[in-house]
Parts: sequence; structure tokens; C-alpha cells
Amino acid sequence: MTPEQIKQAVEALIGPDKVRLDGEALEIYGRDWTKIHTPRPRAIAFPRTTEDVQAIVQFANQQKIALVPSGGRTGLSAGAVAANDELVIVMDYMNKVVEFNAVDRSVTVQAGMITEQLQQFAEEQGLYYPVDFASAGSSQIGGNIATNAGGIKVIKYGMTRDWVLGLKVVTGKGEVLELNRGLIKNNTGYDLRHLFIGAEGTLGIITEATIKLTRAPRNLTVMVLGVPSMQDVMEVLKSFQNSMDLTAFEFFSENALTKVTAHHQLQRPFDTVTPYYALLEFEAENEEVMDTAMQVFEQCMESGWVEDGSISQNETQARNLWSLREFISETISHETPYKNDLSVVVSRVPEFLKEVDTFVEETYPGFEIVWFGHIGDGNLHLNILKPKAMDKDEFFDKCHHVSDKVFAITQAYAGSVSAEHGVGLVKKDFLHFTRSAEEIAYMKAIKQVFDPNGIMNPGKMLDL
Amino acid sequence: MTPEQIKQAVEALIGPDKVRLDGEALEIYGRDWTKIHTPRPRAIAFPRTTEDVQAIVQFANQQKIALVPSGGRTGLSAGAVAANDELVIVMDYMNKVVEFNAVDRSVTVQAGMITEQLQQFAEEQGLYYPVDFASAGSSQIGGNIATNAGGIKVIKYGMTRDWVLGLKVVTGKGEVLELNRGLIKNNTGYDLRHLFIGAEGTLGIITEATIKLTRAPRNLTVMVLGVPSMQDVMEVLKSFQNSMDLTAFEFFSENALTKVTAHHQLQRPFDTVTPYYALLEFEAENEEVMDTAMQVFEQCMESGWVEDGSISQNETQARNLWSLREFISETISHETPYKNDLSVVVSRVPEFLKEVDTFVEETYPGFEIVWFGHIGDGNLHLNILKPKAMDKDEFFDKCHHVSDKVFAITQAYAGSVSAEHGVGLVKKDFLHFTRSAEEIAYMKAIKQVFDPNGIMNPGKMLDL
Repeated sequence: MTPEQIKQAVEALIGPDKVRLDGEALEIYGRDWTKIHTPRPRAIAFPRTTEDVQAIVQFANQQKIALVPSGGRTGLSAGAVAANDELVIVMDYMNKVVEFNAVDRSVTVQAGMITEQLQQFAEEQGLYYPVDFASAGSSQIGGNIATNAGGIKVIKYGMTRDWVLGLKVVTGKGEVLELNRGLIKNNTGYDLRHLFIGAEGTLGIITEATIKLTRAPRNLTVMVLGVPSMQDVMEVLKSFQNSMDLTAFEFFSENALTKVTAHHQLQRPFDTVTPYYALLEFEAENEEVMDTAMQVFEQCMESGWVEDGSISQNETQARNLWSLREFISETISHETPYKNDLSVVVSRVPEFLKEVDTFVEETYPGFEIVWFGHIGDGNLHLNILKPKAMDKDEFFDKCHHVSDKVFAITQAYAGSVSAEHGVGLVKKDFLHFTRSAEEIAYMKAIKQVFDPNGIMNPGKMLDL
Repeated sequence: MTPEQIKQAVEALIGPDKVRLDGEALEIYGRDWTKIHTPRPRAIAFPRTTEDVQAIVQFANQQKIALVPSGGRTGLSAGAVAANDELVIVMDYMNKVVEFNAVDRSVTVQAGMITEQLQQFAEEQGLYYPVDFASAGSSQIGGNIATNAGGIKVIKYGMTRDWVLGLKVVTGKGEVLELNRGLIKNNTGYDLRHLFIGAEGTLGIITEATIKLTRAPRNLTVMVLGVPSMQDVMEVLKSFQNSMDLTAFEFFSENALTKVTAHHQLQRPFDTVTPYYALLEFEAENEEVMDTAMQVFEQCMESGWVEDGSISQNETQARNLWSLREFISETISHETPYKNDLSVVVSRVPEFLKEVDTFVEETYPGFEIVWFGHIGDGNLHLNILKPKAMDKDEFFDKCHHVSDKVFAITQAYAGSVSAEHGVGLVKKDFLHFTRSAEEIAYMKAIKQVFDPNGIMNPGKMLDL
């Protein structure tokens, strides 16, 4: 079918002016934050309701047209890229609150709602949606769910998966399922909801989600600690976790701190220079909690695990300390970073990091490495920066070789080659480093069950 | 194959004296706590390793022999019953700790470990496994996972699902999968772990699990409050939840309290008689928390939502107050109860309870109803007691008619016909009240993917 024929057919189903074919739309809605692939979709559809989405999926099944569900397109694995003549289903106009219930502390929203809007909505109700990350201002809740987004509060609040009480989806076969309908307890067979979470739109399209909210945290307080080694970072983590509840435990290297303070004209948290820094956050609900935090801090100092530290006295200071960690990604984006999103179990982080570090340094002595990440969850972001003199193509080519070896190390540590960024197109060839051949075969068979014609985001995550 | 042939063949695979055919074994391992079906297994196998289990499953595939995975057999939906010539795989001897890691706060155990032993192991490490329920002294962790067990702490700690970091399973095809291997963050395709959780052994057999532990709660304090109506119970819940973190919020009716205090010679929490009672628990970590709790209590009194209350001053008192709730099930077991395990979203509990109550009272005026449950999760246990004069068969026959109508009401409220007890044989015919025809069709197709010969716990949850 030509783009014009698709436009005509889809608009006959969901109404006029709901399909765009112009170059601007094809360009915008064909790519995500990866910017590796050249966008080349056939047409862009803008549904308003679950029924609209269902009509499009049924039409695509009849015509064997590939579909790409499109949220905020902030993904880093090209899960929402349309580079292969697909029909893109844009969820932007499905962004309403469907229902809120204060007793249940739950809200049902359409999948196209921006993450930050959901956070704000929760706040207006005196509640809290705790999944948070740098792209919250653009990403959509449907995309968060389809990629099981993580972020900076996972140690306390878990992943997006942990906040989904119900999903309305249109399967690849064009059937509407209402999965779990907001229930907290419901042991009636396979929990298909969890299959759609993290499926990256390969089984169907999420059109609505019922999200659990929680009470807002109180008096969030931030500490940044200077730590001599990764092993010590783990001791610090263990000491604090055994004495209090943390809402975040992040780390970054001296290299990262130097860059971020220079680029954003930020103050260092203290003068002492250490190879690593831990940032931790907790609810200082009362003086006792604060006393405990200070005691643990002093124990860590006495044990030599911490060399210096800084603690926020108010919200502004807390925000400033967070900036040291949160601005890293943006800071290094100017140096053409090659990004990896790895995880291992928390206890193996130090040896894993050391092994990767040593490998990259020895094999590619000119490459600069910036480490940061969510250490409380075993999630490390390895960023390799392009040497200024090196050509971009040569750099990425070399990095691809780095990946193979880094992923082999990850496999040896029983880790994940994509902790929170998903698979999409970018990690598809590396999936086998984390999932066994048998697992991948079962995944393909499950895909077949929900999407027998293979129209849902084909080529993403799996090749059939 | 005759039982003797099976014994010979399986023992050739996993070693001598690992299969029993005696009447005692067939009787014990053929039934669970439901005691409705007459046990009639063909043979009972006692594997020691995942390899043993795999060998049995591969053998069963070749011979088309039905398998029943068997844990503590404490289920209330006949998910572990073997009444149809099956080979039972008993996990009792696979009960070891495989690995513990203090930094990760995780422990890998074989599936046959008793829940209470896991709780004790955690305690010995200064940690806590929070999933708890009446049968924890007999149930096994593999069975907990296969049925996604809930219990009395779900409001704070969630279901068993929320504590599983990794699973080793043998699929119905006889393949060993290591799912998620203890990682906190791992977004690499469909999370098959969540498919096996709650699958009731119909997709394969869980042989090992990596379980997350957490810090032990501090100074758990219990309040029992006398409440005039279910609507007021919800107001009490909302008031406390908005001000503090609860670890439990249970309820029971005056009828339940009368019975349990009489049967166990327990003291009433206070003299005031109210239609309902709320039991709530929280960590009184410091005086501030206690002050908050007392303030909310007083607000609830002033608003008329609470008429009287009692609070524990020490661990013994806390335990005694818990007894009022926890002994109900055992108390009414002497009166031949017809049990239902229902859930709706929390906010709809009062109208739902009233509608069910009214229906049972009007249609069966002689039946006595005892309500209790986990109100903070929307989970209600409806117990109908046999009138003394009525014959047992007549009673259960009538109750079956009650079920049909109660489940229809549950469906109208978008609730679950099995909140935490699973489906097994007992709820299979009622599955459609909670899951749509499309969902059930997808479930069957998924079963087909993992168990193409239909040997895994056939007839449980689904009929193919």
C-alpha cells in the first residue's frame, strides 16, 4: 500500500486528519534519542482512543503492515525507531487522566501521558510517583512501561514494573486485554501484565495503565562522600543500609566530578579529591534518623571507607548535590560518548568494574572512561569518550569491538547487557550474552502467540 | 507404564530408593490441604538436584506421563493434588541454602526449603524475609512462588513475586532456564521469571530461587480499633496511610472476634462491641511515630470512625492482639467453613462486602457469615459456616450456588475470584469470572509453548 492509501484507509477508521505523511512528521516520529538510524516510516497515525489503536492494529494485520508504537522517543536502544517503511502509532494525544482514586492511591492514565505530568498530578493529590530519571520531561508512561524504565530511586522504589497495577493493551492480534484491572492481589493464572512490561511494543500496544502512587517522601536529605576505592563504596553502602532506609545510592568517578563541575560551574562538594564519590539520599523524618546517619558517616570515616563528606541542610543544597550526579550525562554528551548500561549483582560491582576498566585501558590506552551509575542496584553506566583527534566512525567502530569484550566480561559475571535501557535495535545482537539460547527461543514463541503476523515493532529485541 | 516400571526407570536416572509406591506415600503426597479429591497418584519421586528433576521431566515427556510438582501441599485450591494417575515430584529433599550474600542481601535456596526456615535463616543473618502467612511452618518456598503467596504483610512488603530476584526452573519441555540470576535491573526482553511466578507448576518446575531479603522491622506495634462500619474502616485506613507507613492493615467482624475469643480463651481487646475491627501494625521506631499514631487515633475517634482502641506496649501484647486475627481461620475450621478468597480494589470493599453479605443473608438466611481479611490490599476472606442441623453434602451443594452468584458480583466489581489462593482444580471453572476469554486463550497458548506435551500439572488452572 502506498502512504496515501494507508492514510485514506486509516482515516476511514479513526477519523480525518489523524494521519500525517509530511517529511517533518516522518523525520520527527521516525527516530528516538539514539540518532543512529535514518528515519524512514511510511506514515504516522495519531489515535485518540483504545478503539482507534485496535482499528489500526486490525487493519495492519489485514494488510501485513509493520507498526511502531511511539511514545516520548527518549529511548537509548532504538526501540521506537521507524527506519523500515513502518506505520508509526503516536500516543501523544492519548495523554489524559482517566480516573483517580484517593483511597486506592491509584491513577489510571492513557499511555501517552508524559512521565513528569504524572509526577505532578500525583503531587497535586498529596501523593508521589517515584519512578524518576533524566528524560521524565519528555518520556511517556506507556514507553516507561514498555521499557520497564528504572532511574535514580530504584533502590527504594523499584522499577516501573513495580508501580503498574493494571494495563489495557491491544495485542498484536488486535484484541483488547484489560490486565489485572488495578487489583493488588489477583492470583488467577499467568500474569500477562508482566509480559507486556518491558516487551518494547513487540507483543502489542499499551493504551492505558493503572499506576500505584505512594506517600510523598519527607525532608529528603543528600550526602556526598569521598571514597578511596570501589570496595569501600560497597562497605559504605552496606553500613548505611544496615542502619537506615535509603532512597538512593549513586556513585561517580573523580573524572566525572571534574567534568561536571567544570562544565556547569558547580562547586565541588568538598576539597578532598578521591577516586570515587557516593551520593546517598534518605528521608530525614526526625532527629533520630539524622543522628543515625551522622553516626554511620563517622564509623565510615574511622574505618577509612570515607575520606570526606558533605550533607545537605536544605532543599536547595540537596538539589545542588544531586546536580553533581544528574548533570554528568548531559556534560559528557559533548564529547561523543559511547554508552553502555550494564548490571551485575551488587556485591560483584568492584571486581567487575575493575576488570572492565583494566581491559579498556590496556586495549585502548587513548580512550577516556567516565563511570557513574546506580550502585545500590548494581547498575553501572560505562561511558567511553572519543579522543578529540580520532574520527567519529573509527571511534564507534573500535567501540563495537570494546562492546563484544565488555559484554563477554558481563556474561562471565552473570550480568545484564542492558540494565535499564532495553534491547531495541542497538542491543539485539548482544542479547545472547545475557539470555540463553533456550530463553530466546521461548521469547520468540511467545511473540508468535501475541503477534502471529509479526507486525508489532518487528526487528526490535528479536529477529523471528 | 506400571508404577513398578516407572520406579525402575526413574531410579535408573536419579538413583536407588528415590521413588516410592507404598500406600502411605501415595496418600500423603497425593493430597493438599483442600482434602476434597481422593488421592490417586501412580508413583512418588524424590529428586535431590535440578539435574534429577530435569531427568524426570525428560522421561515424562518421552512416556507422556503427567507430573505434579509437590511442595508443602498447604494450598487451598488443590493445585498440588494428584488424583489422576500422576507421577508426583516431591521437593522435600531439595531444601538447602545454596548461597547467601550479605552485600546483596540475597539468598539462593532450593525450592523445597520450608518458608519458616527461610524466615529463620534471614533472622540469623540480621535480615528479614517478610512474606508470612499461617502455613509458613509447612509451605515450601517453591510452592510459595508457584502460587505467588500473599499473606498478612502485603500492604507494606507485597506478594512473593516482589521478593524473587531469580529462578532456576525446568520447563515442561525439560530445559533448564536460569531466569534473571539475582539481578535487580535487567531489561533484556520478556521477563519469563514473572511468567513462572503464580503459574502453579503448569509451565515447569521451580528448582531454585534467589530471594531478596530486607532489614528487620523495628519495634512492631499493633493497634486494634473498634469500628462502626466498613466505610469507617476505609476512612481509618486512609487516615493512617496518609500519616505513616503501615506494615499491616487487617479487619475482622464482631462475629469472628466472638468466636476466636471464646475458642481460644482470649481477652477481647476492649469492652466496646462494634460491628468491625481493624488491626493495624507499624514500626514504632521512635517517639515521633508513636505520637503520630496516637494523633491519628484521636482524630479517628473524634470523627466517629473509631469507637474504642487498644495498643500493644510490648511484643507479648502485640502477639496477643495478632492472635485475635490469626486464630480465626483455625477457630472456624471446626464449623465446616465454605471459604472464598476474593479481592476488589480497596475503595470498593465496603459496597462489595455489603452486596455479598446481603445476597447470602437473603438467599440463605440460616447461614452464618464470618468475614476477615487483608483490607489494606482489598482482599476479603468470606467464610460461610455450615448450620449444625444441615447435612455436609447439602451444605456444600448450596455453597456452590452461592459461589456462582458471589463470583458474578465479584466480576461486576472487576475483582478477583482468587486473590491469593490460586486456581488449581477448585477455582478452574470460575476463572472466566476474572479473566476474559481472550486472556484464557493466550494463557493456553503460553502453556503450549513451555509444555507442548501437556505433562505439567495437567488439569490445574486450565483445561487444554
